[in-house]
Amino acid sequence: MSRLLLISNSTASGGAYLEYCQGEIVDFLQGSKRVLFVPWALHDLEGYASKASEAFERIGSTIDSIHNAADFRIAIEGAEALFVGGGNTVRLLDRLHRTGLIEPIGRRVKDGMPYLGASAGSNVACLSIRTTNDMPIIQPPSFDALGLVPFNINPHYIDPDPGSTHMGETREKRIREFHEENDPPVVGLRSGSRGAPCGWAEPGPRGCFVVARNRWSTVRAPISRSCWECDEKLQLLRSAGQTTNCPFE
Amino acid sequence: MSRLLLISNSTASGGAYLEYCQGEIVDFLQGSKRVLFVPWALHDLEGYASKASEAFERIGSTIDSIHNAADFRIAIEGAEALFVGGGNTVRLLDRLHRTGLIEPIGRRVKDGMPYLGASAGSNVACLSIRTTNDMPIIQPPSFDALGLVPFNINPHYIDPDPGSTHMGETREKRIREFHEENDPPVVGLRSGSRGAPCGWAEPGPRGCFVVARNRWSTVRAPISRSCWECDEKLQLLRSAGQTTNCPFE
Repeated sequence: MSRLLLISNSTASGGAYLEYCQGEIVDFLQGSKRVLFVPWALHDLEGYASKASEAFERIGSTIDSIHNAADFRIAIEGAEALFVGGGNTVRLLDRLHRTGLIEPIGRRVKDGMPYLGASAGSNVACLSIRTTNDMPIIQPPSFDALGLVPFNINPHYIDPDPGSTHMGETREKRIREFHEENDPPVVGLRSGSRGAPCGWAEPGPRGCFVVARNRWSTVRAPISRSCWECDEKLQLLRSAGQTTNCPFE
Repeated sequence: MSRLLLISNSTASGGAYLEYCQGEIVDFLQGSKRVLFVPWALHDLEGYASKASEAFERIGSTIDSIHNAADFRIAIEGAEALFVGGGNTVRLLDRLHRTGLIEPIGRRVKDGMPYLGASAGSNVACLSIRTTNDMPIIQPPSFDALGLVPFNINPHYIDPDPGSTHMGETREKRIREFHEENDPPVVGLRSGSRGAPCGWAEPGPRGCFVVARNRWSTVRAPISRSCWECDEKLQLLRSAGQTTNCPFE
């Protein structure tokens, strides 16, 4: 069964990098001591790898950044766990396609390699990056992404502000535009706050669920799709076309 | 000489569609009575054409929407003036590529056909749509756009909010990511307000200038590029590599 921890933001306001969701990451890694890091969403690869290293040292793990590997595919094949960092989603996906890593990452995750994603790293775990907030600064060969979960994510989701005079499209309107052209459900992940950070996607024999705590997840999908919002602290999405029961019912 | 009026938002808070910049549109059209409308940024083409028709009736012009034309290319060849409406920029550009209209629109604008763009319609007048805020809901054959001006626009530009705890990238940071991968200057167009709406780009023998009134335009480009901010009411961008003088100096 695939194991994914897909978080919206890597840093909470005022905190250090990955600090606010450190506990969830420790739980998730289940003792993996070496984590392969994918820094391609940012431009400064060395700087990004150093920042990730510091964060993982705090929890007793070591980062190997894939950009320093002699062979990217061999690095993926041998990884204990994968962390795909945030930044520009389109740049990140472009690198994943051009390095030929879409297939090997997908296969290793299906075989059980833990996948930790933050922001852009959560976006590329989905069916496509068509619900990213990022500018398409690079033209990737395809918008299709890793497809590790059967839906799309919109990180840093923000509710419409009824008092706004900005006149740009709201996030909700943008997701509605996505659904004018595409079918997959979209999970809007609000930015996590200290102490209540993380979502967990477990696509498996019982179906695919996104579990989000506190003020985290909003389901934005056409009304015809099944979705639940159990309570403030727990919201679930049953993916389209699946008939398994909610594990919390 | 090309004549373009590229505006950030088609509607000001609390106003009717195109109402706040009606005066500038009248000046710009210089008596054109029939305007060809491109509604492809939105899903509901008929509804959008009706909305545009109402707005242009107020100023004594008639809208013909291109989606009702028997032959799109013939419609472009015969148009007095063009209005490309806002919506999803990626969808709009996809339609322009797939209908083969990039070349004929570019040629007609270079020959003097007035080009009025709002939001997505302003984005596609630029070198590329790589600085759009919109979700890439469709994969276009290319991000390259009409190239009617030698820079990119970011509509609905908003300044970073120092008090924000949102943790998503600021607009400024996104444009910086664009410049990590691309060279062209980017003009951030703030949303216009009632009475002070419009920008005017005139690429011609004297160079290319963006003129923006009131709280309209911010130049976001690498420091190495030439730019001026003359005063609050008038901001100019001299495009990269050009040495013509500011027409207002």
